[in-house]
Amino acid sequence: MARHFRSLLDTQWAQKKFLCIGLDTDTEKIPESVRHPRARESIVAFNKQIIEATKDIAGSYKPNSAFYEAHGDEGVSALRETIEFIHEQAPDVPVILDAKRADIGNTNNGYIQAAFEHMRADAITVHPYQGGEALQPFLDREDKGIIVWCRSSNGGGGEFQDLKVDGEPLYLVVARHVSQQWNKNNNCALVAGATYPEELLMIRRVAPDIPFLIPGIGAQGGDVERTVAAGKDAQGKGMMIAVSRDIIFASPNADFAEVARSKAQELHSRIVAAL
Amino acid sequence: MARHFRSLLDTQWAQKKFLCIGLDTDTEKIPESVRHPRARESIVAFNKQIIEATKDIAGSYKPNSAFYEAHGDEGVSALRETIEFIHEQAPDVPVILDAKRADIGNTNNGYIQAAFEHMRADAITVHPYQGGEALQPFLDREDKGIIVWCRSSNGGGGEFQDLKVDGEPLYLVVARHVSQQWNKNNNCALVAGATYPEELLMIRRVAPDIPFLIPGIGAQGGDVERTVAAGKDAQGKGMMIAVSRDIIFASPNADFAEVARSKAQELHSRIVAAL
Repeated sequence: MARHFRSLLDTQWAQKKFLCIGLDTDTEKIPESVRHPRARESIVAFNKQIIEATKDIAGSYKPNSAFYEAHGDEGVSALRETIEFIHEQAPDVPVILDAKRADIGNTNNGYIQAAFEHMRADAITVHPYQGGEALQPFLDREDKGIIVWCRSSNGGGGEFQDLKVDGEPLYLVVARHVSQQWNKNNNCALVAGATYPEELLMIRRVAPDIPFLIPGIGAQGGDVERTVAAGKDAQGKGMMIAVSRDIIFASPNADFAEVARSKAQELHSRIVAAL
Repeated sequence: MARHFRSLLDTQWAQKKFLCIGLDTDTEKIPESVRHPRARESIVAFNKQIIEATKDIAGSYKPNSAFYEAHGDEGVSALRETIEFIHEQAPDVPVILDAKRADIGNTNNGYIQAAFEHMRADAITVHPYQGGEALQPFLDREDKGIIVWCRSSNGGGGEFQDLKVDGEPLYLVVARHVSQQWNKNNNCALVAGATYPEELLMIRRVAPDIPFLIPGIGAQGGDVERTVAAGKDAQGKGMMIAVSRDIIFASPNADFAEVARSKAQELHSRIVAAL
């Protein structure tokens, strides 16, 4: 049966699975026990152990493309194999390709083919600056999740995002456009950083029914309880809470997968408790 | 000697070479005479003929990454081989990787490694939405060109770019920040579409010394003479005028490289005449 991002997400949410495990697989941080001479093999071996150890906890997986592209064609190949492995091991868990793409009109078809046909991702992150018309080929993919960068978790993210447009910060304008105009296929989501729970709450008011992908918990300082309180929708759902380094690189030793599992379990429990 | 984007560009401009040839190599448009069963071979064979035929006219080359990524790891490999061929055949001509990347902080290092070490591009296009702090790893690369998307050439590009911030459209705020704050290493440029020459003129006033990458001539309807008048800097330079399909796919037959050369020559002459 064909995969459908939003249906997969709903299935995970029904089980209270809101944790999105970020596979930001930096080869320099891979424990020696799974290192191979070739980057491709190291990445795949590491990811497979992480996935096997966390597949019953993760509500979604999110490989960040930058860490794979760093290794050229063999990194791209490792990314494809990682996603294939997730589909095999955890067929109900959606895979978000965190690639932050966006070009104009039909040029996006190349990225669509790369992400959805070649990589077999269920969703992709995109930039908003070029507007919804430019993103139409993405938005037309009713079966895929199109996750639009709305509010950064980085300190300087407000340089443009906080600029006032008719008295309202730009990120809220973006959230409103996505929620009211871009989401005709009910396939949009928003990236909204956990480092600013007040902003998360404002975005939730503007976009009550849109899933949020929320980075910034843990290493970037965001607080689980405040994030859940601000980010959840009226049904107490609507969140993909993304944590990467704090899970996958929690131990530098051979026990990394086991430690990743217990970190994921702990975060999952804290999220559920905060609901 | 190490390559340096801005120096290469200055060398081209001194020869009045402002034409940026876009290698948007859509495999479905590659003439039968150079088609191979594998996408990788088709792309490389086609690009090599285009490059050989235009290398004395082009002021820069700009492969758009989407067309290559569409073919997964073999497309990525074809892109690398294309750039390598340009460096061999036209060592003084800078190569712009039109990949429109941008993530937060150190995550960008993966894209930097991909674009500059693995692909050996001299410049890359990036999104502005996440702010300059997030892009610092790109901006720190003094030897490379960091070309920031400022004003789209697509019809719906104004959805956010035209929003007024203190009475001024957002794209001019972006242009000013890049020109006055991000460009400490004199390595920034701006993407400014040719379909709106009035806007191009406004951006030039805000960013007098910044190179412009100007898409939208030809297929998208921009006019060479008005574009040059609006886009040139005080020295009558400062432009990379990007044309892709109208050159590389000007003929669907075996004479495609020859026709590409004469189209490139014609555009180059019109640009020089308009200066």
